[in-house]
Amino acid sequence: MEPATPSWLPEGKTTAFALTIPVDCETVVLAEGRRFAQHPLPMSHQVYEIQRGVPRLLGMLDALGIKATFFVPGWTLERHPQLVEPIVGAGHELAHHSYSHRPPTDMSESEERADFERALEVMAAFGVTPAGHRAAYWSASSRTLDIVAEYGLRYDTSLMGDDSPYLVRRRDRDVVELPCHWILDDFDHYAFLPQPRIGRNVEAPQTAVGIWRAELDGLRRYGGLYQLTCHAFLSGRAGRTLALRGLLEYALSCGDVEFMTCGEAARRALAAPPARPRAGVTETQ
Amino acid sequence: MEPATPSWLPEGKTTAFALTIPVDCETVVLAEGRRFAQHPLPMSHQVYEIQRGVPRLLGMLDALGIKATFFVPGWTLERHPQLVEPIVGAGHELAHHSYSHRPPTDMSESEERADFERALEVMAAFGVTPAGHRAAYWSASSRTLDIVAEYGLRYDTSLMGDDSPYLVRRRDRDVVELPCHWILDDFDHYAFLPQPRIGRNVEAPQTAVGIWRAELDGLRRYGGLYQLTCHAFLSGRAGRTLALRGLLEYALSCGDVEFMTCGEAARRALAAPPARPRAGVTETQ
Amino acid sequence: MEPATPSWLPEGKTTAFALTIPVDCETVVLAEGRRFAQHPLPMSHQVYEIQRGVPRLLGMLDALGIKATFFVPGWTLERHPQLVEPIVGAGHELAHHSYSHRPPTDMSESEERADFERALEVMAAFGVTPAGHRAAYWSASSRTLDIVAEYGLRYDTSLMGDDSPYLVRRRDRDVVELPCHWILDDFDHYAFLPQPRIGRNVEAPQTAVGIWRAELDGLRRYGGLYQLTCHAFLSGRAGRTLALRGLLEYALSCGDVEFMTCGEAARRALAAPPARPRAGVTETQ
Amino acid sequence: MEPATPSWLPEGKTTAFALTIPVDCETVVLAEGRRFAQHPLPMSHQVYEIQRGVPRLLGMLDALGIKATFFVPGWTLERHPQLVEPIVGAGHELAHHSYSHRPPTDMSESEERADFERALEVMAAFGVTPAGHRAAYWSASSRTLDIVAEYGLRYDTSLMGDDSPYLVRRRDRDVVELPCHWILDDFDHYAFLPQPRIGRNVEAPQTAVGIWRAELDGLRRYGGLYQLTCHAFLSGRAGRTLALRGLLEYALSCGDVEFMTCGEAARRALAAPPARPRAGVTETQ
Repeated sequence: MEPATPSWLPEGKTTAFALTIPVDCETVVLAEGRRFAQHPLPMSHQVYEIQRGVPRLLGMLDALGIKATFFVPGWTLERHPQLVEPIVGAGHELAHHSYSHRPPTDMSESEERADFERALEVMAAFGVTPAGHRAAYWSASSRTLDIVAEYGLRYDTSLMGDDSPYLVRRRDRDVVELPCHWILDDFDHYAFLPQPRIGRNVEAPQTAVGIWRAELDGLRRYGGLYQLTCHAFLSGRAGRTLALRGLLEYALSCGDVEFMTCGEAARRALAAPPARPRAGVTETQ
Repeated sequence: MEPATPSWLPEGKTTAFALTIPVDCETVVLAEGRRFAQHPLPMSHQVYEIQRGVPRLLGMLDALGIKATFFVPGWTLERHPQLVEPIVGAGHELAHHSYSHRPPTDMSESEERADFERALEVMAAFGVTPAGHRAAYWSASSRTLDIVAEYGLRYDTSLMGDDSPYLVRRRDRDVVELPCHWILDDFDHYAFLPQPRIGRNVEAPQTAVGIWRAELDGLRRYGGLYQLTCHAFLSGRAGRTLALRGLLEYALSCGDVEFMTCGEAARRALAAPPARPRAGVTETQ
Repeated sequence: MEPATPSWLPEGKTTAFALTIPVDCETVVLAEGRRFAQHPLPMSHQVYEIQRGVPRLLGMLDALGIKATFFVPGWTLERHPQLVEPIVGAGHELAHHSYSHRPPTDMSESEERADFERALEVMAAFGVTPAGHRAAYWSASSRTLDIVAEYGLRYDTSLMGDDSPYLVRRRDRDVVELPCHWILDDFDHYAFLPQPRIGRNVEAPQTAVGIWRAELDGLRRYGGLYQLTCHAFLSGRAGRTLALRGLLEYALSCGDVEFMTCGEAARRALAAPPARPRAGVTETQ
Repeated sequence: MEPATPSWLPEGKTTAFALTIPVDCETVVLAEGRRFAQHPLPMSHQVYEIQRGVPRLLGMLDALGIKATFFVPGWTLERHPQLVEPIVGAGHELAHHSYSHRPPTDMSESEERADFERALEVMAAFGVTPAGHRAAYWSASSRTLDIVAEYGLRYDTSLMGDDSPYLVRRRDRDVVELPCHWILDDFDHYAFLPQPRIGRNVEAPQTAVGIWRAELDGLRRYGGLYQLTCHAFLSGRAGRTLALRGLLEYALSCGDVEFMTCGEAARRALAAPPARPRAGVTETQ
């Protein structure tokens, strides 16, 4: 079977590769309890992201000529404002990732709305108007897509209902959902922190990248969106950065893989929506 | 040692390969709590099965000429009726997998019976009379096999007492047990959902398929039933489908492996029951 | 470095390979709660051991000419008396593994003593006087070795204080401790049962055997006792049996590995106790 | 990109390899509950460290000519005084690792200070003045670095804020932080003890060493400190020692990797502090 070019991709391309980099920083730890601000180990574990992880990943992306999408909570932007220029100045996309990195499913409607707006205000202070949004922990509430539509963002990326982009109609607007998946998240392979209990994952970089490459080759066969999520405090470790670089170089060499930011993927999907194999989409999707 | 053909298999064959595909869909999430209907992430994670997973697997099976057995809860059939035609029309078997996908060990006798009958009714409305049954979560109660026998089904596939089919006498009838096993279930390798907490598995497709192939080669040596369970919301992901395809192509190339539906395996086992190596079967098996 | 022959081994040998096979059968499940006797899935999972696992392993050992040590709880012997003849008749060792397979650390002294004696009585009824003992779950109490010495058994195999046999002085007698270790137990790689929650392990046979081979090669370098524990309900699965066979064939081919039962290992260690690298053994070891 | 020599390393070297060996011994078990002193299994599991693990690792390091840093709690030194001479006499560094191996985050200030001082006293009785400190479980409290500075130690190694050494100013002194990380700790790959529940890790040595080598190659690319933590009760098992030896031999063969004790790494980092890629270090790091 010769894979066809999906409607929303350039001729000859089977797969859009959107590399996304959340910069959750200390929010991951502080969301588990304010007391952890007094625990040097987990705090230093997250600050690594700023000290070493983001610079290292930015350097690698620059060397490879790839533009990524950075999802940075408002809290991180306020705490580490020096992050913005190197990201935006290098042509990467900066997108909405909540203010406090608490899951919307744990918030009331007014809390969620306030948190959403506060993040927009922080971004505006840096001159950034985000094109899209990702819920903290991908834990969108039943209201999240309404809010995304209401504030005029073009896309959301928190759901898993397909492996191609799909349109969700909310408030008389089409929001593009750019689906994600656990497979393509370094958190489930690399996150290790016993207290607070963030994770117990110490997968080999070779194994994680092997899983990611298997999914990339799968999508190249069937066509779709390959959205990889790499946290700078995880994938910014030296051996993991090298392994990720190997995957990116492989993708660049494929010929049928097109790198793009989430913003561009959403623009393309709106202009020429991908076909879905059959109807039956449920209400809550 | 030259492996002999088991009594119940065609001449020259060592192993029956029964590919089974449960289509649990949203029931997996809703059985953990009705409130999750309001959580877009887990709901979209399950709806993927309908949107993409089942069509992709059906396409692959069609390309390879393999007939599978689909275990679809009654609830799924009611919610996604468009599923039936592509499955039955392509010659696959549709079998009984409860109505609500709650484990029988958690139900009273009257609840279990009502759930069992309701599933039969839904299937009848689609013109389907199931030949066999699989308990939700393989969690048969001490009554389940009685009920299966009472309603005249030919086989059950929820137990693990052997790796060849075996007969269980209930209500004066022989029910064929087609044993399953955790090794050959993609759930334990691939299921990942933190809330509700369905699983934390993100095994590499290469590793999962390596385990499955090791067991296939083992059964080819000793003879028996190879029953593989692949959920469409898990194995329907692109890279996993490709890896599964590789396993199926390998099995097709072996020469001594015969693909068959569970219904056919049960018919064969009833006609020429496999020998068991020794007596001592306990009551509860 | 040329590894020397340890004092207790035949000339030219570096490593004693003692394959041990517990036959815990339903006790593993019933020890978690009597109610599970009514759950067909876990009961069938354990009965597999009798139906298929033990016969398959016995057949393989016969083909390779290897004698193993079977640790069978008294309860299992009463429930499945047909087990004894194929094991003992083939020249394997049958050893003491408690009556009820409850951990001694959870029993009072009188309970532990009664359970110990009851197992001896059951074995005596089959004409067997055990040379050694393994605590259920390796969970010896502070009294266990005293009891082993008191009843005149030659060895125990429940502790991990070395990787060569060592003598423990109790009740004016030397009991040989044949140390075990988690690495060399298939339970930690293969045991999977969610209810009762026995384990969540579905390791690839290649991986498990790779770990076992790494440890074997390590002991061949340093010299010592390689005691491998394989449960028939786990390693008796087809693919795992084949993988285990590969390991055994490798060990047979090494030349410096001597297969022996635990009884023989203990006899040798008593006759020519291995040197320990330094003093400092603590009281509780 | 040609990796440059970091300021603090000898010309032509990219990476400092500091092998660290904690000798926690029974403290790991006793910190979970004094009652476990009566459980022979976990106690023997830890005593293995003294009986076999430390001698085996010392022998290997001697053969390779590598000097390591041993972090030994005061309790271990009192209980197993015979440990000191073989370590110090062979030229390895003996460093401060608390008295009781309880995490500082669980202690009051006076408890932490008393525990810290008691360890110093025990070491002094052996004629050892430690140059550096590692918190038990890497769980430094917000006071720990102050105490380290106050007692005049040159370095701490409990945090993860970078993968090069960095200076932390406390009490008007610069303390060198030699950052560690979970990736490079054998505990997370090998620690297995169900009761007390220390861990459930039985990773293949090949896999663990593969992860370690990936990180080493990453640091060789980017330059930094490679601090590997191997417990003698874990990495002193035969197959794991052999695998570790393979990694050390690889590192020795690289040419750009310099082995050194933590003390030497700290001296170098104080003399020519490594550059950090950007500012923004937070208070709590």
